[in-house]
Amino acid sequence: MKIARSISEMKALRKQCTGKVGFVPTMGYLHEGHLQLVKNAKMDNPVVVVSIFVNPTQFAPNEDFKAYPRDFERDCELLRGIGTDIIFAPSDSDMYPPGFNTWVNVQGITQYLEGRSRPTHFQGVTTVCNKLFNIVQPDNAYFGQKDAQQALVIQKMVRELNMNLEIVVCPTVREADGLAMSSRNTYLTPQERPTANVLYRSLMLAQDMYARGERDAAKIKSAMTGLTLQVPGASIDYVSISDIDNLTEVDRISGRVLVSLAVRIGKPRLIDNIVLG
Amino acid sequence: MKIARSISEMKALRKQCTGKVGFVPTMGYLHEGHLQLVKNAKMDNPVVVVSIFVNPTQFAPNEDFKAYPRDFERDCELLRGIGTDIIFAPSDSDMYPPGFNTWVNVQGITQYLEGRSRPTHFQGVTTVCNKLFNIVQPDNAYFGQKDAQQALVIQKMVRELNMNLEIVVCPTVREADGLAMSSRNTYLTPQERPTANVLYRSLMLAQDMYARGERDAAKIKSAMTGLTLQVPGASIDYVSISDIDNLTEVDRISGRVLVSLAVRIGKPRLIDNIVLG
Repeated sequence: MKIARSISEMKALRKQCTGKVGFVPTMGYLHEGHLQLVKNAKMDNPVVVVSIFVNPTQFAPNEDFKAYPRDFERDCELLRGIGTDIIFAPSDSDMYPPGFNTWVNVQGITQYLEGRSRPTHFQGVTTVCNKLFNIVQPDNAYFGQKDAQQALVIQKMVRELNMNLEIVVCPTVREADGLAMSSRNTYLTPQERPTANVLYRSLMLAQDMYARGERDAAKIKSAMTGLTLQVPGASIDYVSISDIDNLTEVDRISGRVLVSLAVRIGKPRLIDNIVLG
Repeated sequence: MKIARSISEMKALRKQCTGKVGFVPTMGYLHEGHLQLVKNAKMDNPVVVVSIFVNPTQFAPNEDFKAYPRDFERDCELLRGIGTDIIFAPSDSDMYPPGFNTWVNVQGITQYLEGRSRPTHFQGVTTVCNKLFNIVQPDNAYFGQKDAQQALVIQKMVRELNMNLEIVVCPTVREADGLAMSSRNTYLTPQERPTANVLYRSLMLAQDMYARGERDAAKIKSAMTGLTLQVPGASIDYVSISDIDNLTEVDRISGRVLVSLAVRIGKPRLIDNIVLG
């Protein structure tokens, strides 16, 4: 396993790769969700690159960029253990040198859900992914369904800018009680942790209601909201049922929809989703 | 010479290329300035691709997108005559399908000069160049110094998004009387045409004053303005002496500066520039 600590090192390593390259961009502090992405990448590509970069531009000033958990040595061990070929871990100043001022924006679908709560978030995500894709030049890049909107936004960017890679979206990996894996779960206190699967339980409630024939989005969202608010200290950012393509809210469920929610439980803000229809 | 009329055709042709690929993006209606770019590309690269695409997103609604001169057959003949390998001429709907909403923005240096007069122009330029670079995947792309700010903006985009090509800026090609070649020169009436080299004469006046030791930017700009306004019907958009890196106006000339101007002569808005220092 090689570790590239700069863009020029990564580009030099990339030139030596033959055959398809799979790429898993991460912010580190890896959990089983990340590792599953790497395992999927391994199946499709002879060479797998994983980036570890806590991207400052996708955090707002009031968010947790500095507090975001980091453990590079542990991440390297985990990635070595599953046969990662190259880790790309650039510095902030290599990725964003002084005077940096070029931004990639996907408009429209970024104004809803996460984008409404975090208005500068997706510009940071699309810009860093665009850079990472140009540096690593993968044939396939792997993202988790947990960040459903992120995956849609990146797919749209790749398609509309005619970039030369495929985006592969992999199923959300969950803890035994249904909590979607996330590096931010480490913020949960031992008291909060057992309640945090309320996002998953709300989504399962929505799935049940849908299976029983309910198509009124407001009724389903109301039931999800009621269940979530039973958790002491839970505060809802949004509960949404939206068109899977343009992410606008639907009144009645007819085609495929994204059921998603963002809930603050104590310190962390958690998100989760399922697709229905 | 092959002609790719769609993005997928161009990508398929690109896969067959071996060795370096040189690329000249144009809006067609070619003149000797374009042909010189192609000749330069031929010298550096075994394969040369020229795109012909009048990019709608870099024109404001009040600008000349529909009236912009087009002559595809003549362009093809000219390009064939100098050994072009591939012409890429996509349709508007292939480049911008319904719902297209991904934009690349270089901020900062795009707010001055052309960007101040044409606030949405550079977003269109950077977005289309980003797409074209991803489609054609050139090793080298060639731009003319006449559009000095455009070249700086694209160089900044390529550098900051870590794109895998070099931008080569080639000298402005001029008519015998000094008028910089431009497809928009065809808008000049026979009466206006002999006066249109006033942009060049203003720049030469600036160069003379600089050579004689003048360093006060206001004095040089005032002389350029005076000379230009001697042309009946000339209206000045800007006369500028700016820092070559960040394009902010300078009071005194110390380092390298871009001396540039935009002047409307009858219908067309013409631009030109030189670098001093």
